[in-house]
Amino acid sequence: MASSTQGQVITCKAAVAYEPNKPLVIEDVQVAPPQAGEVRIKIFSTALCHTDHYTWSGKDPEGLFPCILGHEAAGVVESVGEGVTDVQPGDHVIPCYQAECKECKFCKSGKTNLCGKVRSATGAGVMMNDLKSRFSVNGKPIYHFMGTSTFSQYTVVHDVSVAKINPQAPLDKVCLLGCGVSTGLGAVWNTAKVEAGSIVAVFGLGTVGLAVAEGAKAAGASRIIGIDIDSKKFDVAKNFGVTEFVNPKDHDKPIQQVLIDLTDGGVDYSFECIGNVSVMRAALECCHKGWGTSVIVGVAASGQEIATRPFQLVTGRVWKGTAFGGFKSRSQVPWLVEKYLKKEIKVDEYITHNMTLADINEAFHLLHEGGCLRCVLTVQD
Amino acid sequence: MASSTQGQVITCKAAVAYEPNKPLVIEDVQVAPPQAGEVRIKIFSTALCHTDHYTWSGKDPEGLFPCILGHEAAGVVESVGEGVTDVQPGDHVIPCYQAECKECKFCKSGKTNLCGKVRSATGAGVMMNDLKSRFSVNGKPIYHFMGTSTFSQYTVVHDVSVAKINPQAPLDKVCLLGCGVSTGLGAVWNTAKVEAGSIVAVFGLGTVGLAVAEGAKAAGASRIIGIDIDSKKFDVAKNFGVTEFVNPKDHDKPIQQVLIDLTDGGVDYSFECIGNVSVMRAALECCHKGWGTSVIVGVAASGQEIATRPFQLVTGRVWKGTAFGGFKSRSQVPWLVEKYLKKEIKVDEYITHNMTLADINEAFHLLHEGGCLRCVLTVQD
Ligand SMILES: NC(=O)c1ccc[n+]([C@@H]2O[C@H](COP(=O)([O-])OP(=O)(O)OC[C@H]3O[C@@H](n4cnc5c(N)ncnc54)[C@H](O)[C@@H]3O)[C@@H](O)[C@H]2O)c1
Ligand SMILES: NC(=O)c1ccc[n+]([C@@H]2O[C@H](COP(=O)([O-])OP(=O)(O)OC[C@H]3O[C@@H](n4cnc5c(N)ncnc54)[C@H](O)[C@@H]3O)[C@@H](O)[C@H]2O)c1
Ligand SMILES: [Zn+2]
Ligand SMILES: [Zn+2]
Ligand SMILES: [Zn+2]
Ligand SMILES: [Zn+2]
Repeated sequence: MASSTQGQVITCKAAVAYEPNKPLVIEDVQVAPPQAGEVRIKIFSTALCHTDHYTWSGKDPEGLFPCILGHEAAGVVESVGEGVTDVQPGDHVIPCYQAECKECKFCKSGKTNLCGKVRSATGAGVMMNDLKSRFSVNGKPIYHFMGTSTFSQYTVVHDVSVAKINPQAPLDKVCLLGCGVSTGLGAVWNTAKVEAGSIVAVFGLGTVGLAVAEGAKAAGASRIIGIDIDSKKFDVAKNFGVTEFVNPKDHDKPIQQVLIDLTDGGVDYSFECIGNVSVMRAALECCHKGWGTSVIVGVAASGQEIATRPFQLVTGRVWKGTAFGGFKSRSQVPWLVEKYLKKEIKVDEYITHNMTLADINEAFHLLHEGGCLRCVLTVQD
Repeated sequence: MASSTQGQVITCKAAVAYEPNKPLVIEDVQVAPPQAGEVRIKIFSTALCHTDHYTWSGKDPEGLFPCILGHEAAGVVESVGEGVTDVQPGDHVIPCYQAECKECKFCKSGKTNLCGKVRSATGAGVMMNDLKSRFSVNGKPIYHFMGTSTFSQYTVVHDVSVAKINPQAPLDKVCLLGCGVSTGLGAVWNTAKVEAGSIVAVFGLGTVGLAVAEGAKAAGASRIIGIDIDSKKFDVAKNFGVTEFVNPKDHDKPIQQVLIDLTDGGVDYSFECIGNVSVMRAALECCHKGWGTSVIVGVAASGQEIATRPFQLVTGRVWKGTAFGGFKSRSQVPWLVEKYLKKEIKVDEYITHNMTLADINEAFHLLHEGGCLRCVLTVQD
């Protein structure tokens, strides 16, 4: 299924971040054809996530401008570069910021999903093959972002970053499996490995925290305590499995003590889904002595540090973190899509807003409104 | 085998710590008979450990004076209180500061060795039955310490704190299995679960660190890197399995970077066996991205905190700690004694000095000399 654009530069719409904290500009960008080991994808839907906002805000010291943000999306392969065999034009795909090459030290270890193959290039906003960008505006290069750059009608990614999914899956829904929902589920299933009967605390009830609750419910947790400073979150959280709600603002005691009292000694598993280093400490310290495990999912601002007394660990608590929920992207995102199609995991329920790429600046504002979980943008006209 | 002293108060020698940081006083102390659920033990040998020194120094905010310190010992049961069935007079035993009741929430969890049964009493320097001490001098009570108080010719402990061992084991050697050696081995075998082929870093090459090295060697580690600021430690460390030695003083770079460079990305497992919070951070940060696990074994001074960037955990490192190496005391200390008798683990090699109880103040000083690993005191005249 060769497309008419194969081998050609494609001019299409993209949202370009020219400067930190300035509105994104919807521009005609030139997207070069994929080189060896690369895949050009026609993006149909993209959601917004906090990492996009964080880099856009200028707080990310590694942020590069001008760039095309976006990493939670779904689309169809337009063309592939030399040597690409795992996908072909017409395949439905989810671009994955966490690559999976299946041959590097990380992939081979069997212990982590943090593939190292293309990391140096994606970190530098370019492609491995020639260390250059495939995006340009009037000949001036625009950096890639997270190896995905999905705020564009077409993007070019490394073949190790493309998960081929069931073509029956609605792209405007399963795009969410490219980041937040998968991260929350995986934090429970892969990183913490929550067992049936466990008491679980979830700090932060945004998309990631709700997916943690959903994952914990599926794992058979006996109590799922949701903690959020926004009490409005509780009603929706119930639908994702949260059984009890605690608002730290309702208590004078430190939140870790509130949870210890509520659970006769502490929770079995806790998850920080906010990105706040003080909450990360509370999430560790509310864990039960002897075995409680805390997983950091939220991403803190650059330079911030977590702290606690070592006695917390010496007496048996375990401190962990997760990236993309520990899922191996190319192997497991297709499996998550199947689970969605079989109605074993929710996705639609996280989508509170639908807009188009043209509305992206408005969508960015929504991210910080309590009522918004995920806003999905239609990218094609 | 009823002893003539059964049911009687025994007057014997003990080293009493009357005040923080003041020499211990060898005194005639009165040791009351064991009450229900208690065991009176004739101590034959005791070693000194840093925890004794820490409390003696006055830095432990929970330290109680006057008290009888000591927790790394071996002896023979003199008499037992009502309801004690697991040991009887004449049994060879190791008193264990970490109890194991087999029936509390902790013991039943299968996830931890931190039995909670007598903790409130031992923390308060008394016995559970009447919340009083069994030690006195001229009618004035002397506090217990860690539920063991082995710097005494006789001590009274809870039955859940007594490990019955093979009577063929030399008490002046296996006393070391009451703390340091077991802790190091267990940190590797139980807490970290080091696999064959792993690269291991051990920070601090005292008794605990050397036991970690020994445990790692037994587990089949491919490289065991010992880190100490005292280069003299390396010669002896070789005998315990250390394959490479790094002195942080020989490097300008932070020690975590030195280790990352030395191991192409970091170690699989690290162990902090010093009690220094900066080293705890380095031990975490020298771990390999994706899977490196760091175990805190050293005990830091009260109030001190560990810190790192959460990114260290989000990218797959795991931070843990261990108390008594995760060994369930009554179930597993006898097994360690058997391993020693079968020459599967070292013990004798950790003993660098032998003295008597009368020399205890001198022995305390030795603890801080580079050449001393463990000093064993003969307690009976
Ligand atoms: N580790 C990963 O791979 C990964 C992947 C995706 C997202 N993330 C991170 O996960 C975090 C959550 O993402 P999200 O999309 O769910 O965010 P979100 O903003 O939708 O949700 C955060 C929630 O936390 C609540 N909150 C804020 N401060 C709080 C406090 N002090 N105490 C209690 N609750 C508080 C907010 O009210 C909100 O409901 C972000 O930091 C994001 O960057 C990490
Ligand atoms: N978690 C537990 O259950 C448990 C049990 C027993 C002992 N401990 C603790 O383990 C620690 C070690 O005990 P030990 O008896 O082996 O002590 P030790 O004093 O014999 O050994 C410590 C070693 O660390 C070295 N060292 C000191 N500062 C250093 C630095 N900055 N960098 C590198 N090396 C440094 C010293 O030279 C020494 O060789 C102590 O803190 C002790 O309280 C914990
Ligand atoms: Zn994201
Ligand atoms: Zn890889
Ligand atoms: Zn000790
Ligand atoms: Zn118990």
